[in-house]
Amino acid sequence: MVSKEYMLSCSEYREAVERQLEKSLPVCRQPYRIVVDAMRYCTLGAGKRMRAMLCLEFCRQSCGDYERALPFAAALEMMHAYSLIHDDLPCMDDDALRRGKPSCHIRFGEANALLAGDALLTASFTAALSGGSHPQVGSERALQAAMTLAGRAGVDGMIGGQVMDLAAEKHPELDDQTLHLLYSLKTGALIRAACEIGAIVGGAGQDVIRLGGEFAAHLGLAFQIVDDILDVTADEQTLGKPVGSDEASGKTTYAIRFGIERARLMAQDSIRRARAVLAQLPGDGRFLEEICNMVLERDH
Amino acid sequence: MVSKEYMLSCSEYREAVERQLEKSLPVCRQPYRIVVDAMRYCTLGAGKRMRAMLCLEFCRQSCGDYERALPFAAALEMMHAYSLIHDDLPCMDDDALRRGKPSCHIRFGEANALLAGDALLTASFTAALSGGSHPQVGSERALQAAMTLAGRAGVDGMIGGQVMDLAAEKHPELDDQTLHLLYSLKTGALIRAACEIGAIVGGAGQDVIRLGGEFAAHLGLAFQIVDDILDVTADEQTLGKPVGSDEASGKTTYAIRFGIERARLMAQDSIRRARAVLAQLPGDGRFLEEICNMVLERDH
Repeated sequence: MVSKEYMLSCSEYREAVERQLEKSLPVCRQPYRIVVDAMRYCTLGAGKRMRAMLCLEFCRQSCGDYERALPFAAALEMMHAYSLIHDDLPCMDDDALRRGKPSCHIRFGEANALLAGDALLTASFTAALSGGSHPQVGSERALQAAMTLAGRAGVDGMIGGQVMDLAAEKHPELDDQTLHLLYSLKTGALIRAACEIGAIVGGAGQDVIRLGGEFAAHLGLAFQIVDDILDVTADEQTLGKPVGSDEASGKTTYAIRFGIERARLMAQDSIRRARAVLAQLPGDGRFLEEICNMVLERDH
Repeated sequence: MVSKEYMLSCSEYREAVERQLEKSLPVCRQPYRIVVDAMRYCTLGAGKRMRAMLCLEFCRQSCGDYERALPFAAALEMMHAYSLIHDDLPCMDDDALRRGKPSCHIRFGEANALLAGDALLTASFTAALSGGSHPQVGSERALQAAMTLAGRAGVDGMIGGQVMDLAAEKHPELDDQTLHLLYSLKTGALIRAACEIGAIVGGAGQDVIRLGGEFAAHLGLAFQIVDDILDVTADEQTLGKPVGSDEASGKTTYAIRFGIERARLMAQDSIRRARAVLAQLPGDGRFLEEICNMVLERDH
């Protein structure tokens, strides 16, 4: 059961992120308007905003104020949105549906989708770096946060995971360790960035930043396992994207390799580990506890 | 005629940038090695390094030391390399040859080329932000430089220009003003970033940063006009990329619209304007003068 307080915090966070994204994304009448429209289409008004919420909550936990982390939360959502656009392209997963709508290249054409992704990736850094103008954040922390974002989103993070994911379609005989690395990079890395950046911006010490990263690693693994399970069990309308695509493309996932029931136990185990890390973090962990529940119980 | 001093400075700058790129690019034996190989293939050992040289020279002009700008120069070259990879993709210009070698997607496949571009774009920010650890640069200037990079490379800069370039293939009846905007974004924006970032990192005042941007705008326009002329007049082997592709794809360029001779006069005029801005800048402008010559006289 999800508490009323959690729902209230969720909507407060989500509304604040939506306003911030609206502010951070370009609006223009210039001759390149189509790609601005594509950026907005793929970023605004949809998505669970889990990365943004984790970032805001870690900042609030660290300094009592979440608002100073808003530019960084927007940066994380833009980074996530770009990765989905490029992931859906014909040369990648070739998915026509995303968040219940035609995916970016279906709606705007392949070249504009490619460029909208590039533009969101670039704008993500503009958003994060602009967060340094808050007097309580400053250049040094903004720089550290942007470095963390680049590191986790780059080739040794999310992109490395996508490369492994693609290679896994051709060589599905991954060992367990490689499958775990793939997950921790593809999905885990940006979730990890969210918690670490929230802590950095809130001025937390090295130990809290490190624990935030550990919490996120477990949460991210559970999130991706549940994603795999939903790819098998959900219906397309609720999920907002095609189902059964993992098996169709010959991917190895936790759900396919271990079966639904064992995968579900593994997700639960991962959440148990996340909770154990939470217990070591200072502050009120209730919101993060409920994020853990949400990850396990979500149906989309 | 190009002076011996210029050639010496060029090789010193180029060698330093090559070493810096070698240091900044990942090396790994991980399961995502293919994309790291693609990043290195597209960035190392080729290219005129004009953006890097401009950045280093503006920094040297501003503080007497170019080395502190090396991480930023590497960042500019990575940003440029990513833009070429994505520009060559089948959904964009669909070019099979780049810098005299098979382009990235021909050599590594389309998905890996897409991801190598994404990874270089991301790594470009890591490189720039890491430049803040130099004690004479610091977080504040590195942040300002990275913001400039993001702004000039983003949707209101280079990417906007690429969007316009694509649209121009379908609607070649551009007016002169729109064609000028297209050029100033597509090619000019990153060249502008190079001069501005060099000045920022070197601690120059607002006026020098502004003049650097103006100089670059004129230089960038001349550079692109010469590029168009070479697309008509050069041979593929010298140029290292296909020729005649502008006309084949129905693009409007200065060379096609105004003819080779008039386009050449326009490039010369633009260089004259660049030189007039140079005269207002403090310091010894000889190296930048020779870059102007190089832009007009280059054959590849």
